[in-house]
Amino acid sequence: MNGAESLIQTLVDGGVDTCFMNPGTSEIHFVAALDRVPQMRGVPCLFEGAASGAADGYARMSGKPASTLLHLGPGLSNALANLHNACRARMPLINIVGDHATFHRHYETPLASNIEAIARPYSTWLRSSASPEAVGQDCAEAIASAITAPFSISTLILPADTAWGEGGVVGEVPQMPPPSCPADSQIDHAAKLLRSDARVALVLGAVLAVGNALTIAGKIAATTGAALLVPFAFTRLERGAGRPSVKRIAYVTEEAIAQLAEFDAVILAGAPPPVSFFAHPNKPSVLTKETTEVFTLSTPQEDGLAALTALALAVKAEKAQPQVPPLARSALPAGSIDSAGLAAVIGALLPENAIVVDESITSGRGMLAATASAPPHDWLVNTGGSIGIALPLSVGAAVACPGRPVLCLEADGSGLYTLQALWTAARENLAITAVIFANRSYAILKGELGSAAANPGPRALEMLQIDRPEIDWVSLARGFGVFGTKVETLEEFAVALRRGFESRAPNLIEVVLP
Amino acid sequence: MNGAESLIQTLVDGGVDTCFMNPGTSEIHFVAALDRVPQMRGVPCLFEGAASGAADGYARMSGKPASTLLHLGPGLSNALANLHNACRARMPLINIVGDHATFHRHYETPLASNIEAIARPYSTWLRSSASPEAVGQDCAEAIASAITAPFSISTLILPADTAWGEGGVVGEVPQMPPPSCPADSQIDHAAKLLRSDARVALVLGAVLAVGNALTIAGKIAATTGAALLVPFAFTRLERGAGRPSVKRIAYVTEEAIAQLAEFDAVILAGAPPPVSFFAHPNKPSVLTKETTEVFTLSTPQEDGLAALTALALAVKAEKAQPQVPPLARSALPAGSIDSAGLAAVIGALLPENAIVVDESITSGRGMLAATASAPPHDWLVNTGGSIGIALPLSVGAAVACPGRPVLCLEADGSGLYTLQALWTAARENLAITAVIFANRSYAILKGELGSAAANPGPRALEMLQIDRPEIDWVSLARGFGVFGTKVETLEEFAVALRRGFESRAPNLIEVVLP
Repeated sequence: MNGAESLIQTLVDGGVDTCFMNPGTSEIHFVAALDRVPQMRGVPCLFEGAASGAADGYARMSGKPASTLLHLGPGLSNALANLHNACRARMPLINIVGDHATFHRHYETPLASNIEAIARPYSTWLRSSASPEAVGQDCAEAIASAITAPFSISTLILPADTAWGEGGVVGEVPQMPPPSCPADSQIDHAAKLLRSDARVALVLGAVLAVGNALTIAGKIAATTGAALLVPFAFTRLERGAGRPSVKRIAYVTEEAIAQLAEFDAVILAGAPPPVSFFAHPNKPSVLTKETTEVFTLSTPQEDGLAALTALALAVKAEKAQPQVPPLARSALPAGSIDSAGLAAVIGALLPENAIVVDESITSGRGMLAATASAPPHDWLVNTGGSIGIALPLSVGAAVACPGRPVLCLEADGSGLYTLQALWTAARENLAITAVIFANRSYAILKGELGSAAANPGPRALEMLQIDRPEIDWVSLARGFGVFGTKVETLEEFAVALRRGFESRAPNLIEVVLP
Repeated sequence: MNGAESLIQTLVDGGVDTCFMNPGTSEIHFVAALDRVPQMRGVPCLFEGAASGAADGYARMSGKPASTLLHLGPGLSNALANLHNACRARMPLINIVGDHATFHRHYETPLASNIEAIARPYSTWLRSSASPEAVGQDCAEAIASAITAPFSISTLILPADTAWGEGGVVGEVPQMPPPSCPADSQIDHAAKLLRSDARVALVLGAVLAVGNALTIAGKIAATTGAALLVPFAFTRLERGAGRPSVKRIAYVTEEAIAQLAEFDAVILAGAPPPVSFFAHPNKPSVLTKETTEVFTLSTPQEDGLAALTALALAVKAEKAQPQVPPLARSALPAGSIDSAGLAAVIGALLPENAIVVDESITSGRGMLAATASAPPHDWLVNTGGSIGIALPLSVGAAVACPGRPVLCLEADGSGLYTLQALWTAARENLAITAVIFANRSYAILKGELGSAAANPGPRALEMLQIDRPEIDWVSLARGFGVFGTKVETLEEFAVALRRGFESRAPNLIEVVLP
């Protein structure tokens, strides 16, 4: 057994059975070993940012770590932007990065690169394997680190000779200590806040807005009157009819400040304190009032589910029924396209059990409200502000959940960073309906420019336009083997969206915004 | 004057008048300042890898540093792969990377990132500006470092408040000591080798295969019988009729070993010792024979032009005439497509003064031979092995040289990493003819797989295919506003190529390989 084979077997044995990959010469022995470990599914990607974003989406929806296979320093570099997002999403990922053979690394070759330095900013665990014999156990430790709370990214560097060399040994994932529950005093203080007359918000962090944690949070809210919130950049939210209502903290600083002004206390369950996304001249960074108590119930390192369970017990909420929205569909609107109309069409047609991947930036701000009473579904967003995540995230989510329809809501500016993900969607025949909101500009920046310069000049403005020439998304989709259609009215959008969901195949809808 | 304005004015005063940019909110004050410093040309890119690759191409063809504008850690991350190539090309670049305002950086926000750590692997000079007053002088030092031999990359991190704050002062680029000439003993030993009976190759490094340096090398070769070589991964080569003949060291290890076997001595003028691109089991890394003397005439830190000038004097070559190929066009071939035929068509039609950007990988290995006697032209290749450079490099070269036709020879696998560069080509109406060699696979890796596994399995092979679905490059080009055409015979290729050159506008030719 060579090193590569022991590596793949260790991944599979450790519960990592999917690898989003863009290999090169130095990874060819990993690729060759795929035929000897058939339990590993390789998903080829044309660009590494599609691979890392897909791995994030896979992890968010499967609850399991995903792996990537990347080609030396440059391949890893291309993956970094979406690793930044995965890092903020607190998702467990294992990057396998090929390197020159150990005896070749000291030469001045074109692809010599300091892979460790490139990996370090986003890797909690990082090692370069020293021999074929070491690869399996290195990989096992990489998995153990990634799946220990808070989930994180491990990067295993695989010199080519440690992959091709014989002597591989399958590693066993070491047992790690479970995360601890916050101290009783933390639970008690949060309970005291909730039982008081104070108006309280409970903010749910990365993996706490789904499943049991969400249900328990819903019970706490029903019993105490607390509001449930998620950060603007949340990892995954289960929502829709029958699920506890959770509001998202707003992006725009003034809106978020107004939204949080009503609370005397904000309790953080694995979430960071609310601060503005960007700083602006003469605007505060902190979104809560000075008089608001911001209290950490649990850190991401702690067992958030246990904390919420203990808190529910402390406020006698165990038997409460969460308040949930009933099933209600918005009516199908008609006429010319505007944000409210687009949101209403989606609210009217979103299939049960859909996965919505939302990076619609300025175009999609009404989407959450319009789908609050839609059939139960998951909602994923950009967690790190590195735009170009939605198409890859959709690919990963669809690979993780083969039976579920994926609705990708994407801004035209953002989608252009990682459009190569469309090809993987076509290759794997994934049920992704990608809606591209084409406003032909970096619209969010035009708003910022207006604030920055009293009278923005033409040379600045034209740096933020993507309308000369116009991007033709239907042609781009066709280029990658995906059926695309362009819509200019709400009726056309509804027809295309329904057809897209029914096709159970990848498809793209370019929505021309007025 | 705010910090951003002082920064742009310092760039312009320091000879950096072009900025390939993909800004975000934290860079908006730089964008706003463009209207106040009209000498700076902003070239928008849809993806940062297009920006950094274009900056490299601009620097290679203009001889001046280019700048990029990037959005925090993720924007810089996306630029890294082509910065890797620029680093190997030894090109001077100035990255301006926006960051959160200094008072906002310590908060846990989605876009908080360790920009310095991300920049360090490819930045010789790296600083985060502390105040609006400091920005101008910081930028001046960044320029000074970048243009000091060997050229390198400077990264200036610009916190948003240092851009928007008043008090900016335009910086003055400090005078740096010029590179030193190698010691006389170095020149003497190289001259002794050249005057001896030994068969000698002179390998020209990054900036020495153009202009005066190339002419002088040609004189040395004519006088001494030495062969002129460039590394496989060379930065820029002036060639064609009337220019000294220079051979490229081969990519394939066995071919390179055979090519270098005839030499008793290899003299390196700013070039690295010849080693194989990748290591392979049971193949050597060093490409020269054990008995071959590998001698460094000048390092990249030294003045290579001065070294060659002194060497020419030492071997009495000052008045020699370089041996140069006459102008000779290959005849236009016809019939079905193969490598030799494609190369002959290009040899027959390449316009005078063209810039060829070659990342054709397996498809283009005959191109150099077929164009050896074509009208004078420049040839640029991938210097760092990070694929996805040719389209961006073409954009940068075309921006630098408005009157010259650019021929981009691109492999379909490589082109997919940075296809967004096509949009910038359309926006700026650049005279780029992009030829995509569509073999629908990572063909180079299939060769490697054959060597790696005695009997490659189907699961491995399908990771290296990009034919399911087929990529439709004509549609991709249309999506970005570029006219595209697909050709399936040599006659069709010739018609499309001629039309492409005549159009003086961006166009793409998808060559379907059998």
